[in-house]
Amino acid sequence: MQYSTKHILNSINESIKDLQFSGEPETLYEPITYILDLGGKRIRPVLTLMAYNLYQNNTDPAMSLALGFEIFHNFTLLHDDLMDKADTRRGKQTVHLKWDDNTAILSGDAMLTEAYKEITKVEDKYLRSILTLFSTTATEIFCGQQLDMQFEKRLDVEPHEYIEMIRLKTAVLLGCALQSGATIAGASQTDCRNLYDFGINIGLAFQLMDDLLDVYGDPATFGKRIGGDILCNKKTLLLISALKNNDTRNELIAWIEKENYNESEKIQAVTALYNQLDLPKAMNKLIYSYYQKGIACLEKVSVPDNAKKELRKLAEELLDRNS
Amino acid sequence: MQYSTKHILNSINESIKDLQFSGEPETLYEPITYILDLGGKRIRPVLTLMAYNLYQNNTDPAMSLALGFEIFHNFTLLHDDLMDKADTRRGKQTVHLKWDDNTAILSGDAMLTEAYKEITKVEDKYLRSILTLFSTTATEIFCGQQLDMQFEKRLDVEPHEYIEMIRLKTAVLLGCALQSGATIAGASQTDCRNLYDFGINIGLAFQLMDDLLDVYGDPATFGKRIGGDILCNKKTLLLISALKNNDTRNELIAWIEKENYNESEKIQAVTALYNQLDLPKAMNKLIYSYYQKGIACLEKVSVPDNAKKELRKLAEELLDRNS
Repeated sequence: MQYSTKHILNSINESIKDLQFSGEPETLYEPITYILDLGGKRIRPVLTLMAYNLYQNNTDPAMSLALGFEIFHNFTLLHDDLMDKADTRRGKQTVHLKWDDNTAILSGDAMLTEAYKEITKVEDKYLRSILTLFSTTATEIFCGQQLDMQFEKRLDVEPHEYIEMIRLKTAVLLGCALQSGATIAGASQTDCRNLYDFGINIGLAFQLMDDLLDVYGDPATFGKRIGGDILCNKKTLLLISALKNNDTRNELIAWIEKENYNESEKIQAVTALYNQLDLPKAMNKLIYSYYQKGIACLEKVSVPDNAKKELRKLAEELLDRNS
Repeated sequence: MQYSTKHILNSINESIKDLQFSGEPETLYEPITYILDLGGKRIRPVLTLMAYNLYQNNTDPAMSLALGFEIFHNFTLLHDDLMDKADTRRGKQTVHLKWDDNTAILSGDAMLTEAYKEITKVEDKYLRSILTLFSTTATEIFCGQQLDMQFEKRLDVEPHEYIEMIRLKTAVLLGCALQSGATIAGASQTDCRNLYDFGINIGLAFQLMDDLLDVYGDPATFGKRIGGDILCNKKTLLLISALKNNDTRNELIAWIEKENYNESEKIQAVTALYNQLDLPKAMNKLIYSYYQKGIACLEKVSVPDNAKKELRKLAEELLDRNS
């Protein structure tokens, strides 16, 4: 039987509550519990359990692996927030502000190790392949973050470079979470590969939608401030595309280089340039094409079509969302 | 046959040269190669290969594991240098100064993952036990670093707290390196445990000797500036002991709290207080007692006495050293 996303999410949140990161010294462990308790959509562990659930009824045996990916994801958020000097995460103070920079570094390091501990709990026969995929994925994510930081200093980022960056920074962990869940459920290599590719494409679509909502989302439901990416000149595909267009390039560069400005005015002006180029339409088209590619990969997975219903629904929800 | 420490060290340095940390983006990988190329005594991988060599003639099968521990150790140095705001490491600029803080954070994270990759190369039948020991050890080291930083802000650190801190921060990785080498050589659990305990005791003795040399070492050979710990008020066992003694406590606190002083004068004055309490003698006695405990553990290891010669010699060299 297929569990609903909601049922799986509940079981994950219960299991996160049961994780014990306590011990001496407290300041090493408190930030780990703190960031994991901030909540979120828990997409990665949900994907692991749903992939497992395509082949097995009881998802309990995949829980440690699922938690490992969630702990790892939150470790990357913790270190990324420090590197980006972000003040808030899900409406709460970031770890490096609530404690200090050194605590953020060290608690993050400890979280990465905790992720490995959870992942190491998989059955012997899958241990090496799961660890190999996970370590490779982790390295790719670090590369993605490094590229993201490098892009901050560049005005000539190409669209394909941006897609590769978000593939590394965001999509590969979704692919890894899905593939790993299927692997330990005994799925075939072909199924594992197709689920991985489903994750990659849905991940790309998801991140592009996130960029779009950052400009065009509903302030009441988006959770983050609308226009945040515009204010910090983040090289999203919107900005990259508009910088490549001669009609908008110079005005955009002027806004990027301006040091004193009214924030609402900058957001309005840059949004108007995006509109002038019809970028929301182009973005929606691109998002939909990745979504379709992803769904095509899911179709190829050799389980009854009915069993894929929940994964299909989740993919839709991830894209047709307000937050 | 038993290889000499020198032979083993050479083979490790050759293998480190062969490690390929290249790829895009370069700035993620360059710091990894940089810090590994700074050299050092390579104590941890040497211990792994020597423990393996107690049971097996050809040490090649243990090399990846040995390198994993060296990569991990250098990752801790990289992040510790950032946290301690250290300027130099082995006479060269630290990574966060040569590049920047964010590069140090991210390259460190990548190194921790690279360490896991090397360690994951061990044979299937040992994989889980080696990973479990390594992850536990890593967590202990993070705890040790956190305690070390907390001690900076305290004047009431107890000697037993200091010993526990250096056990976590330094000694457990020596124990882990030895035990792991023996494990994958097929040693008995009792031998593994005794080698671990040998590592713990030698590690404690080694760190205490390091503290002593920081004050009393020969400037020509010590490699670091003599009196460095005194200048930064590091809570070594020397300072902790002198702070507990009413004859010296107040004068020490005055030096610790003084913001403007002549550096040589402070070093001389604090050293004089240590001498007044005969602390070098007490320290040497304590170091020797840990050394003896360690040797007693090594004696219990069930291999021919002759096979232990090189490990015994290494333990001696680690303590009877000028650098």
